[in-house]
Amino acid sequence: MKTYKKAFLASGFKASAVSCGIKKPGKLDLALIYSDFPAKAACQFTANKIPAAPIKLNKKHLKTAKIFQAIIINSGNANAFTGDAGLRDADETAKYVARLLELKKESVLVNSTGIIGKRLPLAKIKKAIPSLIKGLSAAGINKVTKAIMTTDTFSKKVAIKLNIGGRQVAICGIAKGAGMIAPDMATMLCFILTDANIAQRALRESLGICVDNSFNCITVDGCMSTNDSVIVLANGAAGNPLIDTDNNFGVFVKALGFVCLELAKLIVKDAEGATKFIQIKVSGARSAHEAKIAAKAVANSSLFKAAVYGENPNFGRIVSAIGASGVSVKEERLKIKVSPLGKKEIGVTVSLGMGNAYATVYTSDLTPEYVKINAEYN
Amino acid sequence: MKTYKKAFLASGFKASAVSCGIKKPGKLDLALIYSDFPAKAACQFTANKIPAAPIKLNKKHLKTAKIFQAIIINSGNANAFTGDAGLRDADETAKYVARLLELKKESVLVNSTGIIGKRLPLAKIKKAIPSLIKGLSAAGINKVTKAIMTTDTFSKKVAIKLNIGGRQVAICGIAKGAGMIAPDMATMLCFILTDANIAQRALRESLGICVDNSFNCITVDGCMSTNDSVIVLANGAAGNPLIDTDNNFGVFVKALGFVCLELAKLIVKDAEGATKFIQIKVSGARSAHEAKIAAKAVANSSLFKAAVYGENPNFGRIVSAIGASGVSVKEERLKIKVSPLGKKEIGVTVSLGMGNAYATVYTSDLTPEYVKINAEYN
Repeated sequence: MKTYKKAFLASGFKASAVSCGIKKPGKLDLALIYSDFPAKAACQFTANKIPAAPIKLNKKHLKTAKIFQAIIINSGNANAFTGDAGLRDADETAKYVARLLELKKESVLVNSTGIIGKRLPLAKIKKAIPSLIKGLSAAGINKVTKAIMTTDTFSKKVAIKLNIGGRQVAICGIAKGAGMIAPDMATMLCFILTDANIAQRALRESLGICVDNSFNCITVDGCMSTNDSVIVLANGAAGNPLIDTDNNFGVFVKALGFVCLELAKLIVKDAEGATKFIQIKVSGARSAHEAKIAAKAVANSSLFKAAVYGENPNFGRIVSAIGASGVSVKEERLKIKVSPLGKKEIGVTVSLGMGNAYATVYTSDLTPEYVKINAEYN
Repeated sequence: MKTYKKAFLASGFKASAVSCGIKKPGKLDLALIYSDFPAKAACQFTANKIPAAPIKLNKKHLKTAKIFQAIIINSGNANAFTGDAGLRDADETAKYVARLLELKKESVLVNSTGIIGKRLPLAKIKKAIPSLIKGLSAAGINKVTKAIMTTDTFSKKVAIKLNIGGRQVAICGIAKGAGMIAPDMATMLCFILTDANIAQRALRESLGICVDNSFNCITVDGCMSTNDSVIVLANGAAGNPLIDTDNNFGVFVKALGFVCLELAKLIVKDAEGATKFIQIKVSGARSAHEAKIAAKAVANSSLFKAAVYGENPNFGRIVSAIGASGVSVKEERLKIKVSPLGKKEIGVTVSLGMGNAYATVYTSDLTPEYVKINAEYN
């Protein structure tokens, strides 16, 4: 398994991005990912009960279609809480992309991120799609990582190559995050493109496992967005022997898991206003579920996060958060360790002493800058 | 029912406060409340599974004793996460107060607020108790409101008089709050002293009702403390005909509810770093429980609270918080109104359109100042 610092694209994928005028002039805000070959897809969406229009549309497409070839993404507008009109806008976008690329509408997935409650400027988007298609290239993925950013301060990409049955398989992931990041899912968009030849069920199951151990283990502010999505496309261009749940499944999960966890950590490192990256390990829990609840309770405690920002070793806030989390805990068995707070990366180790299960959650500190960013963002 | 701006004490109560040296020299940090007559008590404590030592002690006392005459309170140290030693410290404090006041140990309740995880300076406390007792007076309650403060910027007291069966009954409440304020319960201490003659069951039930509609409806930062307590003492000195669940119960609940809600609102108004007081009303819910969950989800959203601070009408964050709360909601039925953000008091009205139940929750905005306060506090 080899990591590449510079994003490259898995075989048979192309991408491009343009400025269509949703954000300020000149800012990239519309992106397209295209597979030369029909690809299988697996997706995980937000559990928010008011999901954005593109999520409703993608869910429909995933029900009716088996192969996918294009993902269109805009930033600056979430197309959320926009009702039937918003759904029509998303549908219209997919239709237009499909027509120009000579695809079925259902093989196009649509994603949006940005402000909630405003209609998408559909005319601007449609006008830009032809040039978006014209610009498709392997190198275009780098522009896409920028076009999907909202308050992100750096672009996030992780790419690896691994050998499966004598063939080189690539997994390339890009993501955006920054704010409204909470488990199930982090508020984020993530697109993972692989040329692996993999069975539909294996793809779906591997994504489920990997998201659970990565994006569902991070939190910035406990706020679950309306637009969270992780989408993986697998187009089989690597020509490896088919991966299924019995063949090469473990090695694929490990590789996909690595890409997901690295992207998840990058999202936390770029959290709005953050100055510290915090890893919270809870062990000795009665179940992995309880371990995760306890770790997330600490990770979502504004008091704890503000204390880390202030490099103020206020252990009491960890005790209080765990006690308030509702998991089984006994004061006399609880052990807490915190690494020196002067550093950029902080490790919190909590042992509950109640069992053998454990979980790790990643978060950032809470800073005055976070508040300022979110006081002004609209 | 008559409100008094200046705190007075219900008949038969006395109070005093001194500086014993837990906080900086000269700062009031130890307080005593005393009833001339044996009083009935009702208490509500934090649901935190790692409760502070004094809460463990008070629960024992409430099990064994039926009458109570003294409450001792220190600030600056929570005596939480202090194990068996902490419990002995609390017990020792109660014993010493009881000995000097010639009471049974079980009739003394102990309360602490402040930093978690540090032993109580027992010698300092014991040394100060004689002068604390010597200072007891009706006017002393004003000093007590100051002695129980931690990061509070103003003292909180609400007192009312009402007529029951031709006798004047007083209910006097004091509280401290500021940070680590979350429902079930707010992080806070509240002491309510009444001269009402009331049956034990009626006292307990009325407190349950009133706390549910006041302290359990406020949140500052979603952090539930280890020390939250609401204690009411009723000494019967007013000489009114006995209040029980069938006689004058409604009028007493209304009066006690008023005191609790006013104190709860004062706590929110004095939230750490807050610049705005926010009332969130959710109606049209399937149940009052769901209405409260939805209202609290908005009240605990860092993104929403930062938007209010920035006077930035970002409705999307309300939508997102409600969708993430897990309650039954349909996008097309959801209606949201927000009063002008330029004012000090903000009203958010959410109609879910799913039923007839409603709830109101109170919170404050999230400010850079909140983060700064909590980055430095230890």
